Parts: sequence; C-alpha cells; structure tokens
Amino acid sequence: MAEHIRIDGRHAAELPADDRGLAYGDGVFRTLRIESGQPIGWDEHWRRLQHDCAALDIATPGEAEIRADIRALFATRSDGVCKVMVTRGSGGRGYMPPVPAAPRRIVVAHALPAHANAEPLALARSSIELAVQPRLAGIKHLNRLEQVLARSECDARGVADTWMADSQGFIIATTMRNLFFVDANGCWLTPRLTRAGIIGATRQRLWRALAQAGRPVRENDIRLSALIDCRAAIACNSVGGAVAVSHFEGRALPDSHAQAQYAQQLLRQPSAGNTGSDDRKYR
Amino acid sequence: MAEHIRIDGRHAAELPADDRGLAYGDGVFRTLRIESGQPIGWDEHWRRLQHDCAALDIATPGEAEIRADIRALFATRSDGVCKVMVTRGSGGRGYMPPVPAAPRRIVVAHALPAHANAEPLALARSSIELAVQPRLAGIKHLNRLEQVLARSECDARGVADTWMADSQGFIIATTMRNLFFVDANGCWLTPRLTRAGIIGATRQRLWRALAQAGRPVRENDIRLSALIDCRAAIACNSVGGAVAVSHFEGRALPDSHAQAQYAQQLLRQPSAGNTGSDDRKYR
Repeated sequence: MAEHIRIDGRHAAELPADDRGLAYGDGVFRTLRIESGQPIGWDEHWRRLQHDCAALDIATPGEAEIRADIRALFATRSDGVCKVMVTRGSGGRGYMPPVPAAPRRIVVAHALPAHANAEPLALARSSIELAVQPRLAGIKHLNRLEQVLARSECDARGVADTWMADSQGFIIATTMRNLFFVDANGCWLTPRLTRAGIIGATRQRLWRALAQAGRPVRENDIRLSALIDCRAAIACNSVGGAVAVSHFEGRALPDSHAQAQYAQQLLRQPSAGNTGSDDRKYR
Repeated sequence: MAEHIRIDGRHAAELPADDRGLAYGDGVFRTLRIESGQPIGWDEHWRRLQHDCAALDIATPGEAEIRADIRALFATRSDGVCKVMVTRGSGGRGYMPPVPAAPRRIVVAHALPAHANAEPLALARSSIELAVQPRLAGIKHLNRLEQVLARSECDARGVADTWMADSQGFIIATTMRNLFFVDANGCWLTPRLTRAGIIGATRQRLWRALAQAGRPVRENDIRLSALIDCRAAIACNSVGGAVAVSHFEGRALPDSHAQAQYAQQLLRQPSAGNTGSDDRKYR
C-alpha cells in the first residue's frame, strides 16, 4: 500500500501496464507546491490542467476528485510537492486512442526537493534545442525526453539548471522553469510559448500579479541579442516560486536579486490565488 | 495475473506508478511480429533496441532475458504481435535520471491487429507535422504524442493511414510505417531519418535485402516535388511487412502492387534475418 500515491481515488502503488501514459506519453501533468496542506495557486493549476486535457482531447477529471486526492495525501503532511498526472487511460489499437477513453488520474505526494529553495542561478545554454511543435507547445504533456536529456546534461556539467532555446534560436525556458526578463525601464518580458515550451501555472500567476501591480508585461519571441538592455531575469516554477538569475549566458544581471524578491512577494499575495474563495470551497 | 504481460521477467499486470516511462516517456520500445512462436527479424530488432537504449543512456536488458519473455508469452500462442518496452525504471529527482538507474523491461503479447493484413494505402498528408529534433530522431522512444494526434486524425477522416512531413517539409513516414519510393529506373529511395521519424527494423531489413538483391537503394531528404518520376511506393512496418501505396498525395502509383509483392518476398527470405543462426541460438 503506497500511502503517497492515489490512482483514480484509491491508494495504490501500481497502475495497469497498458496505460497510454506509459506507452506514448499520452497524458498531461501538473506539479503543485503544498503548504499547510493547501495547493498554492490552485485556480491557475486547475485552469491549465483543463486547458491541457482539452488540447489532447482527454476528458478532465473532476476538480472535487483531484482536490480530495490532495487532501487525502497531505492530511498528515503539512508541506511538500504534489504531482497530478492525467493519462488517456488504457487501451486503443496502437497509437489510435480508444473511443470512448477512460482517463486515469494519478496523484502523488513528494517531499520538497532541494531546488525548492534554490540559490541564484547562473544560466548557460543547454546543448539540447527544443523542437518546434505548435500543436503541443505550451502543454505540460508527458513527452518530456528533451527535458530529461537537458537535466542529465546539467548533472554532467555540475550546474543547477540551464536555459534552452528552440531550434529556431528563440529563448524558451530553463529545463524546469519559465523565464522573465526585466529591462532598464522596468518592463517585464517573457518568452512566447506557441512553438515550444510549457506554460507554467506560476508563469501565469506572476504575469497576472505584475499586470495588477501596474508593471508593463508582455510576451514575445526573444533572441539572445534582444537582451542587450536586460537588467534582471527571474526563473519560476510552482515548486520554488521565483528565483534570481544572477547570470544569463555569462552576463551579470545586477537587479535580478531585487526583482526576484519582488516577484516572490507578488506570488505570496492573496490576489495571486493562494487563499481565494476557490480554495476555501474545498476545505 | 496477466498471462500476456511480463515485467522484468515475471507475469504482472501492473507496474510501479513512479516509472519514468509514465512520467516522461523516458524509455524505448519495439513492436515485433511473432510467427510460430518466433519473432520475425529478431536480429535487427535487437540491434535497434541496443542502439536506442544507448542513445538515451539506458542500459539494454539482456538479449537472453527478452527472448525468454517472448518464449514464455508465446508458448501457447503461435502468432501475434509482441511489444517490448524498456524504461529507465523508477525514481530520480524530477527530470534528472537516477544514478545508477535500474531499467525496467515490459514485454506484452497482443493478437494480430487488423492492419497486419492491410489493403493498399491511399496516403494523403497529415495536418500534424513532425517536429525536428536531431537528438531523438530515429529512436523508437516513448514520446509519441505526434503519432497519437495523427492517428486520431486518420480516425476522424476515415482513412487507414496518412503520410507525415517534418516541419521543414520533408517526407518522413506514415503514422506507423516507414516509406520507400521506386522511380522509373527501379531505384529505391527512403527518407533520411536524422531530424525526425523512427528507424523501423523492417525498413532496415528491407534496405539490406534490396541491396543484397542488387537493387540500387539510398536514403535522402525527400520533398514531394522530388517524386515526379515515382512509379511505386511501399509502406512497411514489423506488424504487416510491406504494403503497397496505391496513391500518394492524390497521385496514382501503378507499380506499387508489384513492388510491394517483391518487397514482401524479400522480407520472407532466410537472409532477411528470419531463421538465421541467431534465432536458432534461442530455441
């Protein structure tokens, strides 16, 4: 009995070997930070999960069911990380999805990893370029070999993280974090993720919080050469929030520390979806 | 007890939910045709499996162990399809592979699918373009969402299969078959698979058999416009062997039927690796 895994609402350590998540990566996932038993930024995670399931034509499991899984897994744990996977379930003839499919949800509790409290990141470029696939870009799907290769390279290089470009040379993200850049005028810029990359819930929450705070924010196709006026960069994900990028491709960014602190503060605000009515609804 | 699945050498219906094949598609697979209990073209499948595992830095399971799995699964079945998956196994911190990893092998017996005896194919172009990723091209890895999307589209269109181009416009394959084209001079041409696509064992076996039979064969980057002199096309995979392509993007190919019969005959020859010493070694 695996007390830290629930599959379709039941504690279980194993899943059927014919699951399409295994066979083809035919599914999506989210990684949530849990504090005091509550998922941080649930509203945005739920929105992204619905979006991503719809993009693959997978029926989204019920919100109440997933929240019940999280409550059950974190009843005796105050803090940690929760991974929610939704696969298309079992079966089908080869690549062809079964009709109708019976999606499977797998919810797993983990302890906080070391990178939850990351030091400032000095980011060099990964040798792995992200393939351009507009039909899958933005989706947090289970086809993640590029990230596995890039993380292995980090390990080999002895670095905490690297930044990744797509095969057209545009800056997309780090191996596990979205990126924001801040120029000398205080304008925030984040990579457009319509050809490659993953739209993280924390990226969306930070973007919204910055806009609400009156900061100019936009997304764009960004080449390295466009960062000539860059004063700061932050990297973010749901596990660790906002982290300062001290150096980007060898260039020191003097304001990253201050901007990361500011971003982290914004992400902690009630308006950033941490303690909203939606969370109370499921208590 | 699942009599048709073996995981690491034991009959099992389920696998640990923390398998990296599920989490990231972190693994590879092969699909083999079994006749009279024997895998067709084993030598080439084994060669490709070793190659693909090495490309992802996954230790290849032992050949004798996999052959024993196949024998056990097909002891009471004479014919069918066998899927062999090798994942990096459980664990690791997020995308980062565990060191050392304990790869997991999953071997599954299936009945022959309908497309094992396919009618001639009239192939139109899929709306899904294959992303260009040189680091993963050719490998039969578990990141197969593009093929899932393309197969779903076939179902929606009511067609048996479609051909797929990469995002640079080069012809790569069908959703589940490699392609060969034959021109008016009897020269065979197959798409280069260094940026996208899967190198199938049957493609390799057919290529070798054609060369041994003295036919000119080469691989190249192929655009649709290069097929102006094309007289025949065949599509092949390990389940169904060689199938005639009656039409390619609306163009009738008069010699496909004859060339498919010839290709199928070559694939049945002992020299094509069906009944070689390697197979006997494991009887």
